[in-house]
Amino acid sequence: MKNNGNNRKKKISDVSLEKLNLPRDLKDLNYDQCEKLCSDIRKTLIETVSNNGGHLSSNLGTVELTLALHRVFKSPDDKIIFDVGHQAYTHKILTGRYKEFSTLRKKDGISGFCKPCESKHDPVITGHSSTAVSSAFGIASAMKINGSNNYAVAVVGDGAFTGGMAYEGLNNAGKSDVNLIVILNINEMSISKNVGGMAKYLSNLRYKDGYIKTKDVVEKTLNKVPVIGSPIKNTLRSSKNAFKNFVLSTTIFEELGFDFVGPVDGHDQKDLEEGLRAAKSKKRPVVVAVNTVKGKGYAPAEENPGEYHGVGSFEIETGNPDIVSADSFSSAFGNELVKLAEKDDRICAVTAAMKYGTGLQHFAKAYPERFFDVGIAEEHAATFCGGLAVMGKIPVFAVYSTFVQRCYDQIIHDLSISNTHTVFGIDRAGIVGDDGETHNGIFDIPMITSVPNTKIYSPSDYEELRCCLYNAINNDDGIVAVRYPRGNSKVTNNSPRTDYYYENNNSNCLVVTYGRLYNNVSEAVSEINYGENKVDLLKIVNVFPISDEIKDIISKYENVLFFEESYYDGSISQKISAEFDNVKSFTINGFVKQMSICEAYEQLGFSIDKIIQTIKEHL
Amino acid sequence: MKNNGNNRKKKISDVSLEKLNLPRDLKDLNYDQCEKLCSDIRKTLIETVSNNGGHLSSNLGTVELTLALHRVFKSPDDKIIFDVGHQAYTHKILTGRYKEFSTLRKKDGISGFCKPCESKHDPVITGHSSTAVSSAFGIASAMKINGSNNYAVAVVGDGAFTGGMAYEGLNNAGKSDVNLIVILNINEMSISKNVGGMAKYLSNLRYKDGYIKTKDVVEKTLNKVPVIGSPIKNTLRSSKNAFKNFVLSTTIFEELGFDFVGPVDGHDQKDLEEGLRAAKSKKRPVVVAVNTVKGKGYAPAEENPGEYHGVGSFEIETGNPDIVSADSFSSAFGNELVKLAEKDDRICAVTAAMKYGTGLQHFAKAYPERFFDVGIAEEHAATFCGGLAVMGKIPVFAVYSTFVQRCYDQIIHDLSISNTHTVFGIDRAGIVGDDGETHNGIFDIPMITSVPNTKIYSPSDYEELRCCLYNAINNDDGIVAVRYPRGNSKVTNNSPRTDYYYENNNSNCLVVTYGRLYNNVSEAVSEINYGENKVDLLKIVNVFPISDEIKDIISKYENVLFFEESYYDGSISQKISAEFDNVKSFTINGFVKQMSICEAYEQLGFSIDKIIQTIKEHL
Repeated sequence: MKNNGNNRKKKISDVSLEKLNLPRDLKDLNYDQCEKLCSDIRKTLIETVSNNGGHLSSNLGTVELTLALHRVFKSPDDKIIFDVGHQAYTHKILTGRYKEFSTLRKKDGISGFCKPCESKHDPVITGHSSTAVSSAFGIASAMKINGSNNYAVAVVGDGAFTGGMAYEGLNNAGKSDVNLIVILNINEMSISKNVGGMAKYLSNLRYKDGYIKTKDVVEKTLNKVPVIGSPIKNTLRSSKNAFKNFVLSTTIFEELGFDFVGPVDGHDQKDLEEGLRAAKSKKRPVVVAVNTVKGKGYAPAEENPGEYHGVGSFEIETGNPDIVSADSFSSAFGNELVKLAEKDDRICAVTAAMKYGTGLQHFAKAYPERFFDVGIAEEHAATFCGGLAVMGKIPVFAVYSTFVQRCYDQIIHDLSISNTHTVFGIDRAGIVGDDGETHNGIFDIPMITSVPNTKIYSPSDYEELRCCLYNAINNDDGIVAVRYPRGNSKVTNNSPRTDYYYENNNSNCLVVTYGRLYNNVSEAVSEINYGENKVDLLKIVNVFPISDEIKDIISKYENVLFFEESYYDGSISQKISAEFDNVKSFTINGFVKQMSICEAYEQLGFSIDKIIQTIKEHL
Repeated sequence: MKNNGNNRKKKISDVSLEKLNLPRDLKDLNYDQCEKLCSDIRKTLIETVSNNGGHLSSNLGTVELTLALHRVFKSPDDKIIFDVGHQAYTHKILTGRYKEFSTLRKKDGISGFCKPCESKHDPVITGHSSTAVSSAFGIASAMKINGSNNYAVAVVGDGAFTGGMAYEGLNNAGKSDVNLIVILNINEMSISKNVGGMAKYLSNLRYKDGYIKTKDVVEKTLNKVPVIGSPIKNTLRSSKNAFKNFVLSTTIFEELGFDFVGPVDGHDQKDLEEGLRAAKSKKRPVVVAVNTVKGKGYAPAEENPGEYHGVGSFEIETGNPDIVSADSFSSAFGNELVKLAEKDDRICAVTAAMKYGTGLQHFAKAYPERFFDVGIAEEHAATFCGGLAVMGKIPVFAVYSTFVQRCYDQIIHDLSISNTHTVFGIDRAGIVGDDGETHNGIFDIPMITSVPNTKIYSPSDYEELRCCLYNAINNDDGIVAVRYPRGNSKVTNNSPRTDYYYENNNSNCLVVTYGRLYNNVSEAVSEINYGENKVDLLKIVNVFPISDEIKDIISKYENVLFFEESYYDGSISQKISAEFDNVKSFTINGFVKQMSICEAYEQLGFSIDKIIQTIKEHL
């Protein structure tokens, strides 16, 4: 072995995270020093995440792996891409972001995901699942054109392999000859019972001790059996490629054209680095399977990686908080759906690996035969709903706003053309806060309104959510979206609406809004109406298609101020503006970075004070 | 064997397509009669497609398979779903649409794809690739909830398996226990050399003679070797699941949880029906591999299925015409890209299995190392482009408007947030004609304009296309789409624009348009301007973001009439209307059925006469 980690020229005496020149010094550490460093990193992770929230278990599981990656590869010349990015905290610490790490997920601080604008060691933005193979293959292909010998490395969790995009990337890359290494981080604990055939397959792979050696043993055994071994080998060989398939390509990845290394022990520094060097030496697409333990090194998290709370718990593989508060729109949605399903056995619930995040766990328990977790596979989910609907079911697909973007074509092609009755529970609509740009739900309104045969409700509190969901299931047809925000409702509403709420104070100025933002807008309007100038208030609940009653109301005013928590182009206020010349839009005009929802509202002009100010300026 | 096809009670004497009660009588035919029927069907296919255009080779290849499906299963109780749908002609003939079959792809005629509104035997709409497994699994899941013993059958070509959605469906369904049968139609000739690892894998599978029997033979051989066979079996077994994997699950489909049958001979009625009955008897998810020959039974097509012309030739697997006319926007785009790439080695071309359809074949030949056919995988394609761009390349992704819908999230997440310079050549923008609802390109404007950091050009002739493409590559940044229609340009333009063309006749009425529609609009305007009332004309080429100059011009008029070949919600005219109160939009307000582009224009009010009429009504 060329590099055992103990025979380096430069000796590092102080391995403290403060003192090391990172990532350069990492290659000069011996294994003992690596172990100390990993221990220090774990302490930092636990401290920071306990203060700031974020993903603890997944990051604790990838400390040694990340260190090994930075010792075997040379970032930023070699490009390391962490799929989703919620397991990239160690990478951040090891690439010059240790000192700012305490600002993790805070406004103007270190992002919870990877971002090129944050560091040259983050080649691409990550946040959504299953993209890393595609990005890395693009990078590796460009390297090849450039005549570079560098590597592109994609670190992908097993959960991300339920997404078709990962497969598209593997399928495309497998036939190439680029320096692409896909690290498959297998963590059985992270696999839900529901994510399908691949999960089971990878779980089996985890226990294939010394997979590569096994293949050698089989071949040698057959060779050692002089008389009978050979005929058997021939029998096997005569069955065309069957034996060859067995000896040379037993994994799916090999079938797709990749070389395969592993599984290696993801917490054994030496084993990890040997595996990575083996992969590196092949100079073509390789999958390296790495077994890791989620929560490794921190007893409570290790014992109970999914449910360990205090520092936050996570949705399987996607890293979103997995048990939503009982006081939340998600819970209100999930609980109401259970009640409706009790009375109507046509109702089915569908989630793309977000059972807990969308509040569907109660439905899953009460009606397991009508509950479908399809994996991180929004495209499939939408079309699957179409199949259920064809047979008379009423599918309700609960999906985060930012992820519904994944099934735009399926909504058009498989649901809209045939006007198939499908209900979308669009969770996390609007600003989500500390997850930032990749996760804000600001495009669902433009997206869904650009599709024929759609209807959108945007309730502003739990009771309205319940009423809208009832309508969507029982009184509507076609594609019906009920969209609601992350977090909880501030108000209890005794007169919920499914159309609109209108407060006429005989003003010539009308303030319009919908959804969560109504709470701030109505407070601002109340505040203003204490004074001399009055304004009228319109909350739209059925925001699309825009009804004639809404148009009638709007047409009566000289001055309409529309506050809307959506991207502007394609927004409801833009559509209303197209029909009336009295409307001013106050919307979101670009990506919103990580910060608290409160801070984002302030920045966007959606805080009560800012809304008051805006209204006053236009009176 | 229970059913050999020759021992039926009812005897059918006349097997003519005119006389048979279809599909009911099919089960009563003997194999000789089946053969005659298949021959008649082939004649009908050849006659009709030679008159109407459409997909010949793929349909000739699936005649026996479709007959077998209708003999073994009972449609419409059992649901048969043809992925993409361009191989469903025999299915249409066998399910009561023989008499209308001559209207194939004509206005008000039989669709070239599957449509529930056309027949109860078409369970869902098909047209886009890789959706059938998802639809069928949804249907099968609903059947199970209903306690039904019926089957859902998805017929999927090998090309569709490059799409991640097919994999998402398989992954999700493999762990279930529903009556789902996936027919994998393997046609080696339909596989491009470029579509990746899975293509190679399926190609190998094709030559695995008697796959199922092979496994038996191996096991029996080992059992027959009493002393040595057993140790070898034990050695194999001791390597954990290796032997088990070999004997029980050698195909990827089995790894994902499916049972596997085949490959069966797709032109041997008996073999086919035996295979299907074997699959049926398993009463759980099964993949049946069927080997077919594209163009079977029609010598010219059989010998040269891809390039056979006269009745139209086809894009690999997707069924779109694969060699576009030299006189077309696609060719102008493809040829110009070759020229630009000659001078700039950063330019890369990417296609999702549409090399010929998008005119990229010349680029592929000239710069193979910079050309990437990623398979039917638009999601991956967009993110792959992001990876190329990170390394300083300028990726140009040529994709049909209707298929760019598949990568909405990737455009937002992997390109827009980081403002990555990527050029989209959006082909087939606007009405495409006889392919109908599923293929019209009327959503790309709403979709792309709802994403930050985007710019859109919509040239109206070849020279403008060339100039816009030059700008998009050399002068712009972020996401730049150049969109152009199917077919050819009517005009030669000596003064191409990349911003706008404005014709001021001192009118108070301005007529605005862009893209192909400009040709009809400008003719209509010329016609009007021969008369007493004059109108002014504005052609926008850089349609988004809407420039200040455009706004200045529009602001000067009392009356602005905007003709736009796009869906209304999210259209450019809607956006302009939001800023000005003098604009009237004439757009597309819903899905447009199959008919010629000319007929569609007439129906949409976009013919020259209709435009003249509209303008006159508003003067």
